[in-house]
Amino acid sequence: MLVVQKYGGTSVGDLERIENVANRVAKAREEGKDLVVVVSAMSGETNKLIGYAEHFTKNPAKKEMDMLLSSGERVTAALLSIALQAKGYDAVAMTGRQAGIVTDDLHTYARIEKIDPTAMQNAIKEGKIVIVAGFQGINKDGSVTTLGRGGSDLSAVALAGALNADQCEIYSDVDGIYTTDPRIEPKAKKLDVISYDEMLELSSLGAKVLQNRSVELAKKLKVKLYAKSSFSDNEGTLITEESENMEEVLVSGVVLDKNQARVTLRGVSDRPGIAAEIFSKLADENINVDMIIQNVGTDGATNLGFTVPQSEIDNAKKVMEEFDHDIEGMDYDENVCKVSVVGVGMKSHSGVAAKAFSALAANNINIQMISTSEIKVSMIIDEKYGELAIRTLHEAYELDK
Amino acid sequence: MLVVQKYGGTSVGDLERIENVANRVAKAREEGKDLVVVVSAMSGETNKLIGYAEHFTKNPAKKEMDMLLSSGERVTAALLSIALQAKGYDAVAMTGRQAGIVTDDLHTYARIEKIDPTAMQNAIKEGKIVIVAGFQGINKDGSVTTLGRGGSDLSAVALAGALNADQCEIYSDVDGIYTTDPRIEPKAKKLDVISYDEMLELSSLGAKVLQNRSVELAKKLKVKLYAKSSFSDNEGTLITEESENMEEVLVSGVVLDKNQARVTLRGVSDRPGIAAEIFSKLADENINVDMIIQNVGTDGATNLGFTVPQSEIDNAKKVMEEFDHDIEGMDYDENVCKVSVVGVGMKSHSGVAAKAFSALAANNINIQMISTSEIKVSMIIDEKYGELAIRTLHEAYELDK
Repeated sequence: MLVVQKYGGTSVGDLERIENVANRVAKAREEGKDLVVVVSAMSGETNKLIGYAEHFTKNPAKKEMDMLLSSGERVTAALLSIALQAKGYDAVAMTGRQAGIVTDDLHTYARIEKIDPTAMQNAIKEGKIVIVAGFQGINKDGSVTTLGRGGSDLSAVALAGALNADQCEIYSDVDGIYTTDPRIEPKAKKLDVISYDEMLELSSLGAKVLQNRSVELAKKLKVKLYAKSSFSDNEGTLITEESENMEEVLVSGVVLDKNQARVTLRGVSDRPGIAAEIFSKLADENINVDMIIQNVGTDGATNLGFTVPQSEIDNAKKVMEEFDHDIEGMDYDENVCKVSVVGVGMKSHSGVAAKAFSALAANNINIQMISTSEIKVSMIIDEKYGELAIRTLHEAYELDK
Repeated sequence: MLVVQKYGGTSVGDLERIENVANRVAKAREEGKDLVVVVSAMSGETNKLIGYAEHFTKNPAKKEMDMLLSSGERVTAALLSIALQAKGYDAVAMTGRQAGIVTDDLHTYARIEKIDPTAMQNAIKEGKIVIVAGFQGINKDGSVTTLGRGGSDLSAVALAGALNADQCEIYSDVDGIYTTDPRIEPKAKKLDVISYDEMLELSSLGAKVLQNRSVELAKKLKVKLYAKSSFSDNEGTLITEESENMEEVLVSGVVLDKNQARVTLRGVSDRPGIAAEIFSKLADENINVDMIIQNVGTDGATNLGFTVPQSEIDNAKKVMEEFDHDIEGMDYDENVCKVSVVGVGMKSHSGVAAKAFSALAANNINIQMISTSEIKVSMIIDEKYGELAIRTLHEAYELDK
């Protein structure tokens, strides 16, 4: 059985924790597993190096940043290999380049183009535990590239795909994916299994655990992902393809996003292409639009609503002023939040959305905007009711059971 | 004019010092020079990483150590490149691999086998300042290798050779090579020029400034070396081939080595090969023999003397006991030191050694052993007279003039 494990910055945060990781890897080895272990930089290291660079300029060259930042993962990989060897295990440390990871030229946010797993496979054949510095590769010119924040997850998933590994285990200081944020609802329960799509929709629940790009890649490569804690022997959460069994669960989780501001445009003129114009202009200004809702209005004119991150509401207002002649009126509200209910079960079961609306209504929480997808219902409500709404929905769908 | 500069750990010890180095590089650039700049790890960084590894084992694998330790120079190279770019200069950072440095397989003490300077030359043609992470290369399998302590000097000299650079400037916190250790003789003078051979004989004077292997390589590749300080605009010392001008100087420097212990074997039996047996046995035990002196004794039997580092005297005694039947008697003295007078002028001038003997005799310093080479006279004396001997010799040869 070939397993790719990935240990994040907190899991390798100091020498004692690296020792702990070495013990976990050794244990898996004793269970007869072949292992490729991807590591992040020791926590704090990457920020320290960024701070160094910013001492000289706020805009350091990305090529240089990649050379700088990739050093942190190399240090951890070498140390973990040394720690394993000290315990009598045959280990070998590899950089991204040595592991065969080739990326495009987009420094600091490179995409993996191909992986030549030969060196890793040869080492595995020789009975070695392979330790790979995460987050990095080289481009076709041989320059070091990095994969962006959380890129070590991506390294792990991509290696698991290239090696055709049986599973990929992502270790952090959180022991899996929960039905909602336990800080809001202490009854939140860890999920045993969740689909890739649900995971993507619940990404803010897993933000500390799994990078979105990694989940997308895992879905594409059909890599069985486990989110686990390196500090416990808990089973963790399996992120995988939908199974029939999974469809029995209507709702997997509820999630709160407080960083939302609402813009509603009333009486948008009915000329073709107006929505495209508005959202193109917002995109040109790098304003990140989340929900978009369009209703047919009363007099033939349209009502158009959308949400943006709170920090971008002022820029969004400015852009909207250019459309003055096309719009009758505008509302803004920075004090809103988004609550979402996610579950693959919604696809085949009606009434899931209705249950959310009733539950909120029963608590006098007014819903300002609604948007639904196949596996998600999102609602914009007054920000101050956010936590109450999460607890209400968590109970309504019996997620604590 | 193409110049290779190398800045050591102290010169890039913190962000302000890297800024200072950037200013110096920028100044050289403004003078119209093409530049390849080799950097060490920030001071303390390499020892920190070694400490990390030794947390796990006293004998970490050398391959892993190379991956670990090479990260320090990469950080400095990236930061210096960023600092130069922030000042508006076009710079590019390269790892040892990217600079084309290929070594043998001897991890942690690799030797440079070849350098492909194409990438550096292309960057120079594009008007770029090339910053290279020192101390490292890759072997033919693509594994990272390092060149041993002081290896960045070696990188710089090798790159200067491969690029056919006009000169190679080694920057540290010392502004050149002195006639003797200024802590012993405050009148010690900085030398403007010295030959490669003298530098090698005076290596302990330059230990903080220049690694011996680098001087040997510079001699072989005929690279003009400058030892300079990154904290002053002092001219530094040029280390180069002997010139006629240089021969006018009889003596370049005097140097003290306190880490010496003397062994004298009296009445060594006259059978052929006895000396070879003794020193082979010492070598087998990894005992580092420095001076070796053999005199014909009075009754046909030979007297044999040698020196070893003080820490190895006990092991040396033990080895000598095996030769009991071949030796009449033995003397040991741990309280000795070696003073040496070095100068290419000795080759063509007689009386240089005699002046040393007279000067010491005039101060009642007894000389226990004498050994001479073409450009060096070394004398073993009582340890307590070491500093006095240095000051006496420094004055006798008018090195303060």
